[in-house]
This record gives sequence, C-alpha cells and structure tokens, in this order.
Amino acid sequence: MDIVRRTDGAFHWEGVPIREYKHEGTAPFRDVTRQVLFEPEGLPAQLRYFEVAPGGWTTLERHEHVHAVMVIRGSGQALVGDRAYDINLHDLVSVPPMTWHQFHAAPGEALGFLCMVAAERDRPQLPADHEIDAIAKPLKRA
Amino acid sequence: MDIVRRTDGAFHWEGVPIREYKHEGTAPFRDVTRQVLFEPEGLPAQLRYFEVAPGGWTTLERHEHVHAVMVIRGSGQALVGDRAYDINLHDLVSVPPMTWHQFHAAPGEALGFLCMVAAERDRPQLPADHEIDAIAKPLKRA
Repeated sequence: MDIVRRTDGAFHWEGVPIREYKHEGTAPFRDVTRQVLFEPEGLPAQLRYFEVAPGGWTTLERHEHVHAVMVIRGSGQALVGDRAYDINLHDLVSVPPMTWHQFHAAPGEALGFLCMVAAERDRPQLPADHEIDAIAKPLKRA
Repeated sequence: MDIVRRTDGAFHWEGVPIREYKHEGTAPFRDVTRQVLFEPEGLPAQLRYFEVAPGGWTTLERHEHVHAVMVIRGSGQALVGDRAYDINLHDLVSVPPMTWHQFHAAPGEALGFLCMVAAERDRPQLPADHEIDAIAKPLKRA
C-alpha cells in the first residue's frame, strides 16, 4: 500500500475503490457508498468511509460489534437506540452493542462519515417488518 | 459514554479531555495536543486526534505497531521512512512497522489528524542523537 493516498477533494482516495454499501436486495438502504480506507495487517480494526447521498439512508440494523463514527462531510440524523440525533461536521457517534441504528443524510446535503470497527465482527441483524415503524419513530421525517 | 459528542467547531469534543501529547522531557516534540476520541470496549483499537500548532512537529520515532492516519485540519508534511510527503486535508497516511516517522505542521497553519492504532501496542523507539539528521534529511525545512 502506498504510504500517502491523496484525495481528489471530493471524498475519493487514490487506490480506494468505491464499493456498493451492501448488495442490492439484501437489506433496505438508499444511495449509500462505502470505501475501506484502512485495514492494515497487524491492526485488528478497519476504518471505512460511508457516504449517503442527499435524502438517503443506511440500513436500520443492530449487531454485537460497536461502531465509532465521525462525520467528515455534511449533516443529517443518526438514529441510535430510541433517539434520533442531529449530526454535523466532526460530531462523534458511538453505537453500543445490539442497538438499532441508522444514518440519514439531510435532504439537501450528502452525509459522509468515518466508521471504525473491529476487523472480526458479527453480521448485522435486521428488524422484522412489523418492528420498523416503532424503532424509527424518533426520526424527523423530511 | 454519550451516544453523540459534538464539537465546538474548533476540534474540541464534548467530554474529551485535551491531553499532553507526551510527558515533557521524555521525547522531543513541539506544540502538539492529543485527544482520545474512541477507545470502545470490545473494539481492540483506538481513534485519536492529534493537533500540531503552526510550525510544530511530533516526535521522530518508530515502533512495531502501525499508524493509520487521516488529515482533518490544515496541512503540513509527513516524514515516513526515507521520504517527506506534503499532506493536505483528507489525505491518508500509512506508517508501516518499524518505520521512522514524524508529522510537521505548515508554518502558518495547524495540522490536525486522526490516528487509528491497535489498543495493545509497543512503546515507541527514539533515534540516537547522531542518527536524527540523516533520518530527517528529506524534510523541507521552513
């Protein structure tokens, strides 16, 4: 891996592919990309960059592994547990184990965030259809 | 820990103490602060934020553990191995094992960067006095 990987000023990095957030059809989401910035040998963690297009959202899910998040672009809302939080540039978000969570971009602005996770981690769980409305209730719908 | 910790817009975060970079006198450095943003239970890594004041620098050191770095404020230079790299907003820097490295802020601008490391890691080694000039040779001195 190159020692320094530069940005193009638009949240793309040299040598870092822009990946599908998840495979289409495996879970509900809208307009999200994923870039794995660091997964170094000898460091049991990854640093990823997710970008949610204006008005988009990540999958509503929970898992045992924790997320350590920093917003580095735009603003939006983070649903974590039973509350929705407005989030802005450089805010930090901690997602505890087995806590429902979802990230929403503001209607007019992309939301980009870093997410540190353990390299070894469990697979996300999705809510049953009948649970979704109750879990997502704290969100201010655009 | 709070779910969301906000910034004051100046790279300080709610509930995150601004720490000494290292103890004075233990190693050479100038005008550096350290904030530990995330060290979550169950995640074997930390995310820290270092800020180097204009014209300042971190300690020239090496160690077995790797550093995964993203610039989130300002610009400067990273000395890694036998090269110095200009670094700017959102550039990524990988510091391999046992590689001499040092971060320098530009003369007129603070340099702030995130650094992901393993939670368990070895202590840095410092160069002998007679080695420093040769290691630091690639730097453009201000």
